[in-house]
Amino acid sequence: MSDYIAPLKDMLFVLRELAGLDAVAALPGHEEVSIELAGAILEEAGRFAGKVLSPLNPVGDRHGARWQEGDVVTAPGWREAYAQFVAGGWNALSCPVRHGGQGLPRTISALVEEMWNGANVSFALCPMLTRGAIEALELCGTEAQKALYLPRMVSGQWTGTMNLTEPQAGSDLAAVRTRALPRPDGSYRLHGQKIFITYGEHDLAENIVHLVLARTPDAPDGVKGLSLFVVPKFLLDADGRPGTRNDVRCASLEHKLGIHGSPTAVLTFGDREGAVGWMAGEKNRGLEYMFIMMNAARYSVGLEGVGLAERATQRAADYARTRIQGVEAGARSRDKVAIVRHPDVRRMLLQMKSRTEAMRALATVVAAAMDTAERHPDAGQRRQSQSFVDLMIPVVKGWCTENAVEVASLGVQVHGGMGFIEEAGAAQHLRDARIMPIYEGTTGIQANDLVGRKVALDGGQAMSRLIDRMRDTERLLAQGGDETLAALARRLHEGIAALSRATAFVVATQASDAPRVAAGAVPFLHLCGLVAGGWQMARAALAAHRHLREDAQDTRFYRAKLATARFYADHVLTGAPGLAETVVDGADGVLAIEDEAF
Amino acid sequence: MSDYIAPLKDMLFVLRELAGLDAVAALPGHEEVSIELAGAILEEAGRFAGKVLSPLNPVGDRHGARWQEGDVVTAPGWREAYAQFVAGGWNALSCPVRHGGQGLPRTISALVEEMWNGANVSFALCPMLTRGAIEALELCGTEAQKALYLPRMVSGQWTGTMNLTEPQAGSDLAAVRTRALPRPDGSYRLHGQKIFITYGEHDLAENIVHLVLARTPDAPDGVKGLSLFVVPKFLLDADGRPGTRNDVRCASLEHKLGIHGSPTAVLTFGDREGAVGWMAGEKNRGLEYMFIMMNAARYSVGLEGVGLAERATQRAADYARTRIQGVEAGARSRDKVAIVRHPDVRRMLLQMKSRTEAMRALATVVAAAMDTAERHPDAGQRRQSQSFVDLMIPVVKGWCTENAVEVASLGVQVHGGMGFIEEAGAAQHLRDARIMPIYEGTTGIQANDLVGRKVALDGGQAMSRLIDRMRDTERLLAQGGDETLAALARRLHEGIAALSRATAFVVATQASDAPRVAAGAVPFLHLCGLVAGGWQMARAALAAHRHLREDAQDTRFYRAKLATARFYADHVLTGAPGLAETVVDGADGVLAIEDEAF
Repeated sequence: MSDYIAPLKDMLFVLRELAGLDAVAALPGHEEVSIELAGAILEEAGRFAGKVLSPLNPVGDRHGARWQEGDVVTAPGWREAYAQFVAGGWNALSCPVRHGGQGLPRTISALVEEMWNGANVSFALCPMLTRGAIEALELCGTEAQKALYLPRMVSGQWTGTMNLTEPQAGSDLAAVRTRALPRPDGSYRLHGQKIFITYGEHDLAENIVHLVLARTPDAPDGVKGLSLFVVPKFLLDADGRPGTRNDVRCASLEHKLGIHGSPTAVLTFGDREGAVGWMAGEKNRGLEYMFIMMNAARYSVGLEGVGLAERATQRAADYARTRIQGVEAGARSRDKVAIVRHPDVRRMLLQMKSRTEAMRALATVVAAAMDTAERHPDAGQRRQSQSFVDLMIPVVKGWCTENAVEVASLGVQVHGGMGFIEEAGAAQHLRDARIMPIYEGTTGIQANDLVGRKVALDGGQAMSRLIDRMRDTERLLAQGGDETLAALARRLHEGIAALSRATAFVVATQASDAPRVAAGAVPFLHLCGLVAGGWQMARAALAAHRHLREDAQDTRFYRAKLATARFYADHVLTGAPGLAETVVDGADGVLAIEDEAF
Repeated sequence: MSDYIAPLKDMLFVLRELAGLDAVAALPGHEEVSIELAGAILEEAGRFAGKVLSPLNPVGDRHGARWQEGDVVTAPGWREAYAQFVAGGWNALSCPVRHGGQGLPRTISALVEEMWNGANVSFALCPMLTRGAIEALELCGTEAQKALYLPRMVSGQWTGTMNLTEPQAGSDLAAVRTRALPRPDGSYRLHGQKIFITYGEHDLAENIVHLVLARTPDAPDGVKGLSLFVVPKFLLDADGRPGTRNDVRCASLEHKLGIHGSPTAVLTFGDREGAVGWMAGEKNRGLEYMFIMMNAARYSVGLEGVGLAERATQRAADYARTRIQGVEAGARSRDKVAIVRHPDVRRMLLQMKSRTEAMRALATVVAAAMDTAERHPDAGQRRQSQSFVDLMIPVVKGWCTENAVEVASLGVQVHGGMGFIEEAGAAQHLRDARIMPIYEGTTGIQANDLVGRKVALDGGQAMSRLIDRMRDTERLLAQGGDETLAALARRLHEGIAALSRATAFVVATQASDAPRVAAGAVPFLHLCGLVAGGWQMARAALAAHRHLREDAQDTRFYRAKLATARFYADHVLTGAPGLAETVVDGADGVLAIEDEAF
């Protein structure tokens, strides 16, 4: 199959009709932003994604990143591609201008990021982690640290990592044991082992800036004793250039189900004299900083889900359009047809397409809210936008990544027997997708964050405001005077009712009986995603309906938007009432069973 | 993690309480059958599965079957295990006594087969295909063919294959091109290429009996021109022993996502002088025979789903009981606990466990109906049982295999980051499971068979009878005077109502508008499986409730059965009404969208 093709038209539709790029462009500091600028950037990025990154995706899968005596060699062509990526200024896209970035709104850079993920998620992980590290240093680094590290990290000359996990400390970071011993010169010596470190070692860049959670000798137990340290792979010389090798080594790489192109390292700190590091921010506040950085990373992993789902959908549609097999049901002709004509194949493709579009729309709307929260002149607007972002981040992360696995799995299914053969490429997407609901916090952890901190803590207010916005859309659908819009209104109504009911349960129960809520937290997260996605599909249908009424251009495109929204409503959103039942009633079985019964 | 452990207690519960082993034992020819005999066989089989087959499962995955100049070498230890399998008489278990088989009821052999699949699905494919070939030869082979081939195939000395697929003929067998040219001696010479041939070449047995679909020169086009041929790898000498190599070669093996231990061959027939074959059955009726054989194979693939789901569940439960991470929500103690204590982990494990139990119960009840259909003295009973079997085979195949993928995927999720690391083993189950909804007819094909031939063709009568039986169970639940049973009754009631509504739609619409039904055929199949599974879980709950009331033994086991049924009702069966909505209303989006929109 041909390479990834950036869905420019769909993306511009989302920017224009759903995410409100005009409003983003009206924010202070984004005066240069316009739909034309967005189009030009997306087109250029799409070319890079399709021509450079996409062809390297199967190469990375087959070749993998290879460990050689502590060094890591990426797959053939990856070094050159990364150099091009840096030279093209892509790494700096959404980074702050004061450190050499281009300061593009998240609304646009999120779509560019989706492209990297669609073309080659293993590659995209490297700049994604670097951006996370940049944000953390921005937040808590000293001025000297910022000056030393940020310009080269923003350009992409150096990359960044997040070092949290240890063998005994996965989801539970309270169990982190890595030690940081203070030295008279103000630096620290770190000793410990970190695992699952994405791009913890590689040959793409001249230095790697590790951000490491560790404990000082006097730190309290648990999460309140973790501090954050900057530990470069190469210590910087007097001119700020990479000099002496630091005492951090890659002991091995993991043998993984997917994302083979991306090295997942076991890093050993301080096997010899201790890895030299400097504290970033205040002592014992490391987890707090990491969480801020992780929020951005969680959103980015959601974008991985969107990009991968788009790619799997493109591949499956391409196969379905060209694979000739069987005759058409109900047709007079006995001629063999492409399998895209078979209703169940269409159904699968529409599952893939409609979920991908719903995810993209939701993620971009959240990105626009990030921009609003950062720059809107009105404090109330900033606050409201931020509360929407906070509410939605676990949903974007959890729902988009779970969807990505299902979409990729459907992609295999569309291919029939060929889907199971690695050469066809569909299987790689499933293997690559499977990590997404796990890393940067499993879906269970996202769901606990959602019900606890995001819904119950404010008594359901942020969710109420969201539901009000959804009801506005429902009203517009009902007033549309159109049969399809009316059908969408009915399904959205049921979805909103289910979400309200489940939210009321969460708010009423969390304080008194948290395990009861936790037993249905993931179904609640799915419900939120399903309904929020349905809301966006409904908004897309309204926009398409308006265009079809008002002008005669792109009628095919807009008719497809209506049909896709209709499909989503009848095949995906129909799951909402059942999920609400599970959230409200489902704890008995979960809590009643004894551990020994498993 | 330790090896596969056969779930003996669960299996005996199903035999005793749900599948009616007593009634099976009362059938003519099964007088020797008893629960004690079943227990002894299952125990012995469980030992073989756990001690011999299970340890070879990761070996097969890592090593794979390897092509060497046309020969295929299976993974280390596999030859020895297969020899033990044959020596133990396991291959002959459910084969007919007249050809040296043990003639065990399917009710019992299905559970044994589940064990082979649970321990090592790549290995289990070999005897599964052999049994399919045995059934086909039984059905349509000449007496001479039966005498020549069956005894050694029944013992397992020789294995069998099904040769249907060609590059252009996957789901659409009308496109098969392999030619069979008649020779004056009554034999044929075959020329053509077959792909995706499971165990098409290997080193486990001294001969391989290929059953091949091909066309004679005078055959009509399409599926009505296909005949079935017996083509042994080695031609038999005068004593019926493997002699000269036939002109069929393994050109290559596929590089697959999973089931690496099982060789998937490209077979070339007649590269030189033509592969020698003999027609089995009548000319041009090959597809008909293959379909009969395929029905058995489809059921067996359903059992693959059950076995694999059981294995994935065991592995995840084992991990969850031993992995210490975090403190318990809502508990006073700040001690770290095993993750099985976290509500969402319990939820995932219960998804896995409850679906696995529902699938096993349904599959075994269907097996009992197979036995009844074969042997019951009353013709009406035989007919009714057969119609239930026919109705349920696409459901067992489609639903159990789709479930297996989801259960295996949840198994990865329970492991967190470790699930993505191949050494943990959870990822292999997902990779292995992914072929199951594809081979022997994709889920889409099962669903079309279900709505067309199994539901609409008899005007929904077989489904009506099934729904009546479900309503009986609902009544018993409602009369149980127990809160849990009453809750189950409500959910089952909703499920049955959804199934009835969807069935009425299928019956009313199929003749007039088949594509409309086809657009929701897979959701309909899921609905059938979901509700039929819920029916079995409800029956299990009734039996458990009775035991808890009547005796004080095994109370933990029976309490777990109640809790698991409750979970299934509130977390799985809740999906039924939404699926019915999709079946009835979901065609518009699917049929409205234009091909170009994908």
